[in-house]
Amino acid sequence: MNGAQSLLSTLQANGVDVCFGNPGTSEMHFVAALDHVPSMRGVLGLFEGVVTGAADGYARVTGRPAATLLHLGPGLGNGFANLHNARRAHVPMINVVGDHATYHSRFDAPLDSDIAAVSSAVSGWHRRTARPDDVAGDAADAVRAAYGPPGQIATLVLPADASWGELSSAQRTALVQRPMSPAPTADRIADAVRVLRTKKTAIILGYDGLRLPALSLAHRIGAHHGVRIMSETFPTLQDRGSGAFQPDRIIYLSEFAVGQLKECEAVVLVGAKIPVGFFGYPDIPSELLPAECEVVTLTEPGHSAVAGLEALCDELGSDPVVLPHGSAPEAPSGDLTTLSLAQAVAATLPADTILVDESNTGGLHLYGQLTHAAPHQLMTLTGGAIGYGLPAAVGAAIGGGGRRVLAIESDGSMMYTLQALWTMARESLDITVLGLSNRSYAILNLELGRVGATAEGAASRRMLDLDNPQLDLCGLAASQGVPAQRVTSADELVVALQRSYATPGPTFIEVVLPKGLG
Amino acid sequence: MNGAQSLLSTLQANGVDVCFGNPGTSEMHFVAALDHVPSMRGVLGLFEGVVTGAADGYARVTGRPAATLLHLGPGLGNGFANLHNARRAHVPMINVVGDHATYHSRFDAPLDSDIAAVSSAVSGWHRRTARPDDVAGDAADAVRAAYGPPGQIATLVLPADASWGELSSAQRTALVQRPMSPAPTADRIADAVRVLRTKKTAIILGYDGLRLPALSLAHRIGAHHGVRIMSETFPTLQDRGSGAFQPDRIIYLSEFAVGQLKECEAVVLVGAKIPVGFFGYPDIPSELLPAECEVVTLTEPGHSAVAGLEALCDELGSDPVVLPHGSAPEAPSGDLTTLSLAQAVAATLPADTILVDESNTGGLHLYGQLTHAAPHQLMTLTGGAIGYGLPAAVGAAIGGGGRRVLAIESDGSMMYTLQALWTMARESLDITVLGLSNRSYAILNLELGRVGATAEGAASRRMLDLDNPQLDLCGLAASQGVPAQRVTSADELVVALQRSYATPGPTFIEVVLPKGLG
Repeated sequence: MNGAQSLLSTLQANGVDVCFGNPGTSEMHFVAALDHVPSMRGVLGLFEGVVTGAADGYARVTGRPAATLLHLGPGLGNGFANLHNARRAHVPMINVVGDHATYHSRFDAPLDSDIAAVSSAVSGWHRRTARPDDVAGDAADAVRAAYGPPGQIATLVLPADASWGELSSAQRTALVQRPMSPAPTADRIADAVRVLRTKKTAIILGYDGLRLPALSLAHRIGAHHGVRIMSETFPTLQDRGSGAFQPDRIIYLSEFAVGQLKECEAVVLVGAKIPVGFFGYPDIPSELLPAECEVVTLTEPGHSAVAGLEALCDELGSDPVVLPHGSAPEAPSGDLTTLSLAQAVAATLPADTILVDESNTGGLHLYGQLTHAAPHQLMTLTGGAIGYGLPAAVGAAIGGGGRRVLAIESDGSMMYTLQALWTMARESLDITVLGLSNRSYAILNLELGRVGATAEGAASRRMLDLDNPQLDLCGLAASQGVPAQRVTSADELVVALQRSYATPGPTFIEVVLPKGLG
Repeated sequence: MNGAQSLLSTLQANGVDVCFGNPGTSEMHFVAALDHVPSMRGVLGLFEGVVTGAADGYARVTGRPAATLLHLGPGLGNGFANLHNARRAHVPMINVVGDHATYHSRFDAPLDSDIAAVSSAVSGWHRRTARPDDVAGDAADAVRAAYGPPGQIATLVLPADASWGELSSAQRTALVQRPMSPAPTADRIADAVRVLRTKKTAIILGYDGLRLPALSLAHRIGAHHGVRIMSETFPTLQDRGSGAFQPDRIIYLSEFAVGQLKECEAVVLVGAKIPVGFFGYPDIPSELLPAECEVVTLTEPGHSAVAGLEALCDELGSDPVVLPHGSAPEAPSGDLTTLSLAQAVAATLPADTILVDESNTGGLHLYGQLTHAAPHQLMTLTGGAIGYGLPAAVGAAIGGGGRRVLAIESDGSMMYTLQALWTMARESLDITVLGLSNRSYAILNLELGRVGATAEGAASRRMLDLDNPQLDLCGLAASQGVPAQRVTSADELVVALQRSYATPGPTFIEVVLPKGLG
């Protein structure tokens, strides 16, 4: 047995059975080892941003880490943006970064670079394996580290000779148990109870606080004690639609969020961070809470939101409550607008869909319209690094056990990691992609005014518009093997969505919206 | 005047007049400032790997830095692989990385990350500007640092408030002179002369040693003194074709390079590094020179190869020599193979073409066949991080002053940064792209055996093949606005090449080669 086989066996024994990768020469033994560990599923991405984004989507849906296989520093660098998003999502992930053989590193060969420096910006755990006999132990440590809690990125650098070298003896690796998230301390619970009893308080839910059991508990507290239940703006994974309590989402635009939060005398954070502006702006505060607002952190990511909320229910007393009834919108007709788009999605959404949202301005109405749609799970752009949606959809489909994935992508973001479409076709994944064409970095046209800039000249406009030449999103999908069609009316969109849900494998639907902010 | 305007004005005053960028919210004032500094050309890339690769190609052709505009840590990360290649090419480049406003950084907002850590792996110079009044001085320092010599990457982090804030007074920035590369010391010259006189010596040329004046001097020394003249494997920019002396290129495959170098008693390095294996392999040495070979470094990148070689000619005495005559191959006919591909390129190449080579295995015969083609310049993948070719072609065309650019791309590499095609169309760049379709990471099938791995199972094959589904390279180009056609015979390729050279703007030609190694 060589190091690569030891690595794959150890990962597989510890429940890591999917590897997204784009290998190079230094990873060839890892690739060859796939033939020896047949229960490990290898999935090829044509760019490392696809690889890391897929591992993120997989982890959000399953709660388990996938492995990535990356080619030295440049491979890790190519995966950086989606690793950044995954770090912000607190998901477990194991990066295997192949490197030069240990004895080759001193020659500063062309592909040599400071892997540890790049890794340090995204990894919660980092180790360079020294020799084949260490691989199994290091891999088990990586799995342990990835689980956290909370989940984090564990990066294992695997020199080529640690991969191809034979082990000196059979390895036996301690199996890693998926850890339980601890309950919050009594002090934190007491603090939360105190402010809930004495102050005008909002509970802000994030991370595992946005899953069904936690939402239901938060709803009880809200209904019985006059507490406002809110949610972070960009959740890792949120249960939504019919049957899920709907907290008030903190608005992305700081100027509105400040108004939304201005009456809070206290907030209790459950898996969420203190709300701050996504960016700083010249005349808008970075801190969204009133200056005198008391902040109590009941649970951070890594503690159990459910345990925290159960403790509050026990202390405060609150019986289960019935969700208010609501209906999904009717299927729309007529022009395609951001509103009719959202209505079409909500009206047709199959139950248990995983919705990957990177719609940006085009998805303005989605969140609201989907409140009473069929039950679904929403994942969002946690770290603000665009190009996460298509890759995350790949991972969500592979981790989702046959559930339909709907990825809603803006054109500008889609172009970052469009190679993910090829993997969707190759793996015959049940993914519907809505490619929203507005031929613009529309959000930047919005942000321009918010930062107080004026860009009305031709030179500046050319950095924000995408309409010359116009991208043929359908063509980009079809050229990678994904059946594609373009829709220009709400009626066409409804039919296309329904057809896609009834068709195994991926479908791409280009949705032509009005240019810019629409 | 605000900080962004000060930055652009300073860059422009120091000869930096092209900015490749993909901006976000924190860069909006920089974008707006483009309207105030009209001689600065802003070029939008749809992904940061395009942006940094374009700046590399631009610098290779012009010797001058372009600026890049990148959006916080994820933008820098997305550009990492081509920054790595640029670092290995010793080109000047100025990264402007927008960041959160200084007062906003402490909130750990979603896009916050350790920019300095990522930058450290690629930048020779790094600074974070503190306030608007510092911008001009910092920008001038960045230009100075970028020039080296040798050229290097200078990364300036520009917080949003340093960008939008008003300067307290008019700034006057010292202009930066492009520095001269110094001549080597007398000791180095004496050492080189000694080994050239007493030992069986090869001169290995790299970097500026591969430009016409240096090649001509090296040819004289070689012809008169029985010295073998060789070149590094992956040059930054090499003058080739008719009229250029042709050194022996060190072979990529270490096992052959060892044989090529085995009789050397000494080597004199002129802008080149000591040759080492691209990767380490189980049974192939990493060091390619014989153990007892003496190494004399006459010039490193940053010293003048011409000055060094002139000194050798003065010491050794050597009159100018006439280049041996050679002819370009005839235009081929019949099947498309790696040989007929190379013949077609060589037979049709217009004079003064800039050839961007990322052909990998498909380009096996290119280097040899092009020896007597029309005069041209060759740039190659200096850092081994694939996805450099299409972006570098963008930069080469913008820096090339109307010269035709021919980019020869393998399918696997092309898929890394295919968004560059859109920028080619948008900017109407005179670029011919040959997209070599062999439906495989063919080089990895070669490398498999070299590292001693066996991958004959379905699981491993799936990580190396690109044929399911088959990529429609033409469709990918046409969908981004680049006219495209597919050729399946050498005759068609010749016609298509000739037509593309006669047609302004970009053309994409998909070249269908036999699958795999062909």
